[in-house]
Amino acid sequence: MKAAYINQTGPAENIVVGELPAPTPTGSQVLVHVGAASVNPIDTYIRSGLAPMPNMPFPFVIGSDLAGVVTAVGPDAKRFRVGDRVWGANEGKLGRQGTFSELAAVDEQRLYATPEHVSDEQAAALALVGITSHLGLVEHAQLQPGETVLVNGGSGGVGSTVIQMARAIGATVIATTSGAEKMEYCRTLGANHVLDYRHDDVPKRVAELTGGVDVWWETSRMPNFDAIFAAMKLRGRVILIAGRASRVEFPVGAFYTKCLSLHGFAMFLASAEVQRQAAEQISEWLEAGKLHAKIDRVALLDDAAELHRLQEASDSGAIRGKLVVKM
Amino acid sequence: MKAAYINQTGPAENIVVGELPAPTPTGSQVLVHVGAASVNPIDTYIRSGLAPMPNMPFPFVIGSDLAGVVTAVGPDAKRFRVGDRVWGANEGKLGRQGTFSELAAVDEQRLYATPEHVSDEQAAALALVGITSHLGLVEHAQLQPGETVLVNGGSGGVGSTVIQMARAIGATVIATTSGAEKMEYCRTLGANHVLDYRHDDVPKRVAELTGGVDVWWETSRMPNFDAIFAAMKLRGRVILIAGRASRVEFPVGAFYTKCLSLHGFAMFLASAEVQRQAAEQISEWLEAGKLHAKIDRVALLDDAAELHRLQEASDSGAIRGKLVVKM
Repeated sequence: MKAAYINQTGPAENIVVGELPAPTPTGSQVLVHVGAASVNPIDTYIRSGLAPMPNMPFPFVIGSDLAGVVTAVGPDAKRFRVGDRVWGANEGKLGRQGTFSELAAVDEQRLYATPEHVSDEQAAALALVGITSHLGLVEHAQLQPGETVLVNGGSGGVGSTVIQMARAIGATVIATTSGAEKMEYCRTLGANHVLDYRHDDVPKRVAELTGGVDVWWETSRMPNFDAIFAAMKLRGRVILIAGRASRVEFPVGAFYTKCLSLHGFAMFLASAEVQRQAAEQISEWLEAGKLHAKIDRVALLDDAAELHRLQEASDSGAIRGKLVVKM
Repeated sequence: MKAAYINQTGPAENIVVGELPAPTPTGSQVLVHVGAASVNPIDTYIRSGLAPMPNMPFPFVIGSDLAGVVTAVGPDAKRFRVGDRVWGANEGKLGRQGTFSELAAVDEQRLYATPEHVSDEQAAALALVGITSHLGLVEHAQLQPGETVLVNGGSGGVGSTVIQMARAIGATVIATTSGAEKMEYCRTLGANHVLDYRHDDVPKRVAELTGGVDVWWETSRMPNFDAIFAAMKLRGRVILIAGRASRVEFPVGAFYTKCLSLHGFAMFLASAEVQRQAAEQISEWLEAGKLHAKIDRVALLDDAAELHRLQEASDSGAIRGKLVVKM
């Protein structure tokens, strides 16, 4: 089968596109004929070695997300049958092969039914960012209907998903981004208020608009805790998911005297059961049209290295949505 | 009645000990003949103005904790009767008068029954530190039996209470302190392991002893997040309750890649109902002999200013336990 893989961690040039033996599903695995996969920042960290994964198999197929059709089932698989459409978000981790291949053997506990009217491209583009957003808002921040969420960086892959999901939960959403075009995009996603972080005094505007926020979702790798804590209501929760190499100042008094909490997580460390709860609600929202991924481009497996380079240049505005591969 | 009070915020010299009119209990207040009160760091911050309190009445009676006997009840009071022994932890805040007085009018929702065999000195000494410790371990860290707690600064007022409470909940406790005498004290409180933070490599020793901690209770005003995060297990919780003016470095990657959470709080902002749940378990533990306060000295109301000066010098080792006033 055709696959994009690496023989050792390193730069995007290490990615080889070529033939690998097709896997055979064992135990509770099913074999998925991959229709689409997408690129996430974590894929580039795993490929480069910045995020070391234990027991990484080589050649290592890159990629976390997939959507496709079940073509064979292992002897202990019970959830799915041949022909079922499925999606998943959590391959290529902790000794498992990734998803940038024509066929992927995936444990059925990490696969979810794709709703009938949702394309593989949409399901693959929303997989990892969707489960990440859901875990952050529901599992960690315990967001309640009627609360206010601020998404700092609302036009990116995770940020745009968090806006839609927070609205689906019934929260008021303030998004920040930069420039008129991205601000308008955040509005189309459902943000109630949109601020330009280059020009607006965010804590001041937040105070005027809503009197403070209950949940702050940080997408920047350099969180400004002074501004964040100033914008929070009493008992607010801050979600942190990026900034592997960042060191920033932390104002202790502003944090504890407001009874705040700060929650960090890496979605792939959540249990299969917790991820499934998130995934099932995501499937419902997809079916109901409440979640939609903005896709920058749909490319071919041959373009895998170029897609990684684009993802790595995302801070400079190189991409405007998810990078998707169609098999 | 005799009371220790201030006419304006400022240094300990502002404390006046003299006569004030006795309060009359209104609504659901009861009048408490105060048997004992104790000094907490927050009392010195409120007195100095470092922790500004809205609607502070002047003359303002200092003090948060009290234990004593009900001598009169307001028209709507239902929980207590004249002669009942009670304790409380949360006066002198948000427009309320404090406890360093012969009589205090306190809403009954913030008072709890003192167990029969527990002295007023013990109840007053354990009041604020007890509720703080309980809220941190139970409400915020959600400590489970069998987990491991590290108490950084185990021999202080809060630290010594956290050790005993974590053991009562069924956790394994690692305490840090400095010097042989304080290390032995932490052992007598029930700590399973005691480290000297001046000499031990705490994260390394924690890894050897327990493979990491589930809950880190920080008492230092300058938390060392590098050491803390290095010592944590996946999904660990860090409790932060001090350091009003501190700014420290925060290593973002070490935090979120371990799925950690950080919880700050000021106990007096918790609801009366949440505080009552904590207080009722504290009363049970007091009765069962599972909690005991180390009292540095029992002084008189006339010594109030001197007690505040001692509390403010606590970092230099001026005191070895709670400062208690007996009326």
